[in-house]
Amino acid sequence: MLRRIAVVGTGLIGGSVGLAARARGNLEVVGFDADRRSLAAAEARNAISRSAGSLAEAADGADLMVIATPVDLIPDVADEIAAVVAPTTVVTDVGSTKSEVVARAAAALGPRFVGGHPMAGSERHGIDAAEATLFDDAWWILTPTHETSASAYSTVSDLVATVGGRPVAVGPDVHDSLVARLSHVPQLAASAIVTVAAAAGDREPLLGLAGNGFRDVTRIAASNPDLWIAIIRSNARSVLEGLSGLGDRLAWISDAIEAGRWDELRSFMDAARTARVELFAKPVYTGAPVALELMIPDRPGVLAEVTTAAGDIGANIEDLRIIHSTEGGQGRLELVVAGDDAATALTERLGALGYRVEHPID
Amino acid sequence: MLRRIAVVGTGLIGGSVGLAARARGNLEVVGFDADRRSLAAAEARNAISRSAGSLAEAADGADLMVIATPVDLIPDVADEIAAVVAPTTVVTDVGSTKSEVVARAAAALGPRFVGGHPMAGSERHGIDAAEATLFDDAWWILTPTHETSASAYSTVSDLVATVGGRPVAVGPDVHDSLVARLSHVPQLAASAIVTVAAAAGDREPLLGLAGNGFRDVTRIAASNPDLWIAIIRSNARSVLEGLSGLGDRLAWISDAIEAGRWDELRSFMDAARTARVELFAKPVYTGAPVALELMIPDRPGVLAEVTTAAGDIGANIEDLRIIHSTEGGQGRLELVVAGDDAATALTERLGALGYRVEHPID
Repeated sequence: MLRRIAVVGTGLIGGSVGLAARARGNLEVVGFDADRRSLAAAEARNAISRSAGSLAEAADGADLMVIATPVDLIPDVADEIAAVVAPTTVVTDVGSTKSEVVARAAAALGPRFVGGHPMAGSERHGIDAAEATLFDDAWWILTPTHETSASAYSTVSDLVATVGGRPVAVGPDVHDSLVARLSHVPQLAASAIVTVAAAAGDREPLLGLAGNGFRDVTRIAASNPDLWIAIIRSNARSVLEGLSGLGDRLAWISDAIEAGRWDELRSFMDAARTARVELFAKPVYTGAPVALELMIPDRPGVLAEVTTAAGDIGANIEDLRIIHSTEGGQGRLELVVAGDDAATALTERLGALGYRVEHPID
Repeated sequence: MLRRIAVVGTGLIGGSVGLAARARGNLEVVGFDADRRSLAAAEARNAISRSAGSLAEAADGADLMVIATPVDLIPDVADEIAAVVAPTTVVTDVGSTKSEVVARAAAALGPRFVGGHPMAGSERHGIDAAEATLFDDAWWILTPTHETSASAYSTVSDLVATVGGRPVAVGPDVHDSLVARLSHVPQLAASAIVTVAAAAGDREPLLGLAGNGFRDVTRIAASNPDLWIAIIRSNARSVLEGLSGLGDRLAWISDAIEAGRWDELRSFMDAARTARVELFAKPVYTGAPVALELMIPDRPGVLAEVTTAAGDIGANIEDLRIIHSTEGGQGRLELVVAGDDAATALTERLGALGYRVEHPID
C-alpha cells in the first residue's frame, strides 16, 4: 500500500510525478533536489507535500523513492540512497537509458530496485514545465531483471498507474536499443536537419517560411542539450548502430535520386508510410480486467520473464502479486491484464515459454 | 478586380483554395479535374461553384486560373491552357518546386504566368482533406521572374490574401534550394527514420511505445509517395545537395560519439537548438498598412527585383500597383507593407539596390 513517496530531482518528470501522485493518489510526496530553487518552485507549485533538507530526510519513512535526476547522476544517487534507506523501501528511476543505470543501481540497491522510463516528455524542461497530466495514457517502461523482486515491481507499477501511465515490462538492453531508434537517433537527426536549413547564409530571413512539416520534424531539436548529451553518452553503442542504419538509408536515397530509380524510391517511401501508419494503429489492449494465475518455479528471473513476455506482445500488466508457497519449490503468480484479447495473447505467449496459465474467473 | 477563378485540380490545395475563395472573397470558382470523382466531390463539398467539362470551359471567362495538379503535370497543363485561354487571363500554380515549372509555364504563357507555392499542407491529400482555413497565416511564396507582369503579380497576390495567406516573393532557384532544405530533405529523412525503427524485427509490437517526439518527427512520413516522387524528381539537384549536407552532419555526429567528444556534440546540439528557436521567433512584420512609392525604370525584371527584395527580409507585400508613365522611360510603383518596421527595412533594402523610396503618407 503506497502512502508516501520521495521524489529526488524535482524537474519536469519528478515534478509531474509529484503533481499527479498528489492529485490522483492522494499520496504524500516528499521532495529533494540539490538545486534549492527548483525544490522551492516544486513546493510553490504544490508538486510536493514538503521539502526534505537531505537525501536521508527524503528517504525516511518513504514507501517508494523515485530518482528523477538527469540520467548521468542516477548511479551516484542510487549509491547515496543505499547508504541511508530502510530495507523495505522500494526504489525506481525515470532515466531515459537503462542498461548502465539498472546495472549500477541494482548493484547498490538489490532486488528492491526497479528501473523505469516514462515515454512522455516535452522539449521543455524543469519544474515550470511539469504537468499532472504528463503521463496520461503514456507507456511507462519498467525494466525488471532476473533479480528484481515481485513486490517491488508491483509497488512501482502501482505508482505508474496512479499517475496515469501504462506500465509495460521490457528488458534493459531491449529498452536501450528500442529508444535509440525511437528517440535518440530521431533527436540527433532533428538537430542535423535544423543545421542543414540554418546553413542558408544570407537567405536566413526566409527560413521563417518553413511550414508545419518542418516545425514537426524539428520540434525536439529545441530540447536541452545537457540532458541529451547525458542520454546519448549512456547509450552510445545503440545510438551508433541506429545512426549507421540511418546513414545507410540516406546514402541509398541519394543513389536512387542520382540514378533516377524513381520506382524504387517510391517503394521505399511507401514502405515507410505503411510502417508509420501501422506503428500507431496497433491495437492497444483494452477491456474489463482479466485475472490470470500461474504456478511458477521459485527461481530468479521468473518475474522478469513473465512481465517482459507481456511487454513483447504490447500488453501492460495492471496488477501483479506473487504468493510464495510454503511447501515445495513453487509459488503462485497472480496478474491482471486489460481485456480478453490481452489475456488470450499472453496465455499463449506464456504457454510457449512453458508456463501453464489458469483463468481463475472463467 | 477578381470575380471568377478557375481551379484546375480539385485536391487538397485546389479544393482548399476554392473553399476559402468562395467563403471569404465571394468569388465564383469554376472547377476542373481529369478525375471526375474528385471533381464531383469538390462540387458536393461546395469547394467549387460549378464543374467545367473541359479545360477550355474552365478557362472561359476566368480572371485567374490556378493550376493545382500534381507538380509533374503542371507544365503540360500550362501548355494546354495556353492553347485555349483569353489573353487577359492570369495563370498561377501551386507546385511544390518552381525552377522547372516556372521555366516551362512561362515559356507557354508569358508574362501573365506567376509561379506560386503555399507553405501549407497536410500529410493527408485529396478533396476530403481540404479546408477553408488551410492557408490562414501561412506564407505563400510567389516566384516572379524578370518577365512577370506587375498586374499579373498583383492579381495572384490578391487571391492569396483573399484565401488567408501571406504572399512573399522569392526567385524560383532560391525557392527550390530553400524548400529542399525546409521540406524535401526533412521528408526523406522522416521516411528513413521510420524504416530504421521498423527494422526492429521481432520487437515490432514494442514500436508502439514511441513517444510524442517520434510521432512529431515522423508524421510527414505518412504522406502520399506518388506526390513526393514527383516533387523530388523535379528538384533533384537541390535535394541531393541537402541530403549530402545531412549525411555529412550525421557522420560527424557518429565520429564525435565514437571519440567521446561530448563538448563538441553538446555545442552542435546547442547551436541547432538556438537555430530552431530563432527560426520561429523571427518577427513577423505587422501593423497598420504603410504605402511606399518608388520611381522605377521601365525595364524587365524590376517587379521581380523589388518584390524579392521584400521577400529577402521576410516581409510580405500586401498590395502592389505599377503606373506606367506616358513620358520618359519611367513608371511609378506603389506598394503596401504591414507596419512601420517593414516599411523602414524595405526602404533601406531598396535603397541599397539603387531605388529611392518615398512614403506618400508621412
